[in-house]
Amino acid sequence: MSATNGDDINCTRMCGDNTVPPKDDLPFTFSQEPTLEQLRQTQNTFSKERNWGKFHQPRNLLLALVGEVGELAELFQWRGEVKDGLPGWTEPEREHVAQEMSDVLIYLVRLAEKCHIDLPTAAARKIELNRLKYPVDKVCGSSKKYTEYTAD
Amino acid sequence: MSATNGDDINCTRMCGDNTVPPKDDLPFTFSQEPTLEQLRQTQNTFSKERNWGKFHQPRNLLLALVGEVGELAELFQWRGEVKDGLPGWTEPEREHVAQEMSDVLIYLVRLAEKCHIDLPTAAARKIELNRLKYPVDKVCGSSKKYTEYTAD
Amino acid sequence: MSATNGDDINCTRMCGDNTVPPKDDLPFTFSQEPTLEQLRQTQNTFSKERNWGKFHQPRNLLLALVGEVGELAELFQWRGEVKDGLPGWTEPEREHVAQEMSDVLIYLVRLAEKCHIDLPTAAARKIELNRLKYPVDKVCGSSKKYTEYTAD
Amino acid sequence: MSATNGDDINCTRMCGDNTVPPKDDLPFTFSQEPTLEQLRQTQNTFSKERNWGKFHQPRNLLLALVGEVGELAELFQWRGEVKDGLPGWTEPEREHVAQEMSDVLIYLVRLAEKCHIDLPTAAARKIELNRLKYPVDKVCGSSKKYTEYTAD
Repeated sequence: MSATNGDDINCTRMCGDNTVPPKDDLPFTFSQEPTLEQLRQTQNTFSKERNWGKFHQPRNLLLALVGEVGELAELFQWRGEVKDGLPGWTEPEREHVAQEMSDVLIYLVRLAEKCHIDLPTAAARKIELNRLKYPVDKVCGSSKKYTEYTAD
Repeated sequence: MSATNGDDINCTRMCGDNTVPPKDDLPFTFSQEPTLEQLRQTQNTFSKERNWGKFHQPRNLLLALVGEVGELAELFQWRGEVKDGLPGWTEPEREHVAQEMSDVLIYLVRLAEKCHIDLPTAAARKIELNRLKYPVDKVCGSSKKYTEYTAD
Repeated sequence: MSATNGDDINCTRMCGDNTVPPKDDLPFTFSQEPTLEQLRQTQNTFSKERNWGKFHQPRNLLLALVGEVGELAELFQWRGEVKDGLPGWTEPEREHVAQEMSDVLIYLVRLAEKCHIDLPTAAARKIELNRLKYPVDKVCGSSKKYTEYTAD
Repeated sequence: MSATNGDDINCTRMCGDNTVPPKDDLPFTFSQEPTLEQLRQTQNTFSKERNWGKFHQPRNLLLALVGEVGELAELFQWRGEVKDGLPGWTEPEREHVAQEMSDVLIYLVRLAEKCHIDLPTAAARKIELNRLKYPVDKVCGSSKKYTEYTAD
């Protein structure tokens, strides 16, 4: 990061320390709640109230998840390229996207619960593994490297 | 099952007010953190550090999500029926499941961010909609009703 | 667009009777063989030789199909929009696409066989149903109508 | 295969030269037609008549394929294990399965055409590659080996 090391400077510039925020750095955030644990608990109660736990074996839930991913895909299928923030989409279309994403999440949470996987912890750990797997100085700003790195 | 209000009693019994917990009522819970917003923030930083935001258009992320769901499916494909808690699965197999579920979640969170969908709020609202759509007294304990109701 | 029957002329013009072939009317064709039945037979023999039939229950095959669709999706995930004929893709990349499409087809054929579905007949019938469902004079050349029609 | 080589005999016995046909050796076959090329041609004409070629870029078709796989998955999601031939499924349920499988095939054929992949030839070649990759004497009758071999 010394003044003489052009590559580092360049890499820092390309990879996130810009003073001008990159185009994808929108101030969009999620709500703080519900947490994944709260969603798990809510959905667990919902299923128990309806006595539906008996249908929720892991492979049933996995196929249901695949079905919801399919419904999400259908919303994007005839669109051509879609830009950040879904410009030009109507409010009902956005609401539809939100509902299908929610269905994917709900089944994923339920599947994780049924498999006894602590999903939030696992996801945090996975991002940490990705940090090790794709070190900034090796993969920064290169689509080729990105593709190669993520291919395995 | 008394002559007076047996059905209600039965339905309550079947649908969640049992004093003996149903078989699927395991005391398994997720960790409280990270929240979905924390995961979004962490993954956003991770991508920005690597200048990968430019690859993360919605349809790219959607196809990446499909890819990860495929990898998750592969872990269950030759298993026949799988029971709650993945009995008989080795620790590396469980870890593999945890990682693929995490990848699905990470891309879903990133996709929601890029579409400006507040995923936790949307998911909570979707469960509320499901409560209205599948009232306990109509769907309780019936696989036929369950299938019909969830088919649309 | 004349007062007499301009709409019909226009619709015919838009929907396929052009003397100049539309851009997507490439002279690309498949080989005549193997047929779906020949592929079914070849894959059936392949599985029987390896005593793998016992792994090929319908839901196992369905999850394997999902896995292969995921692998196909991965080849397109960081590409942005992709044009007809995959211009700019290398020969190994095309070969990879061909292999993943083949895996999808092979598992679909095997799944249909295991479900006792006559896939070629079913597919021909489905296209006929689509002809009735999307009559040319109603859907021709309209993306809005297309989306609406195919949404259900 | 000589009389003295017990392993070969055993392997032959386990892997397909039985005089008693294995349980999965049902006499079910597909119709000889339509071929994949005939389906491609029929669907190409169908799309051209409706001027829908402009919607059929590769990634649009790929997402449509994912959507159809999702619809197929939904038919199997609450079923628990499903046996060969779909015993106990009603005629409308079978017809529904046939239609969703058809949709998957139709989009796969269309996607292959748009990518200029000769799908029948590619599939035949892929099965040949699988023959080399999974030699009978190494993988016969072993689920462990099967899983390991197909994992990569």
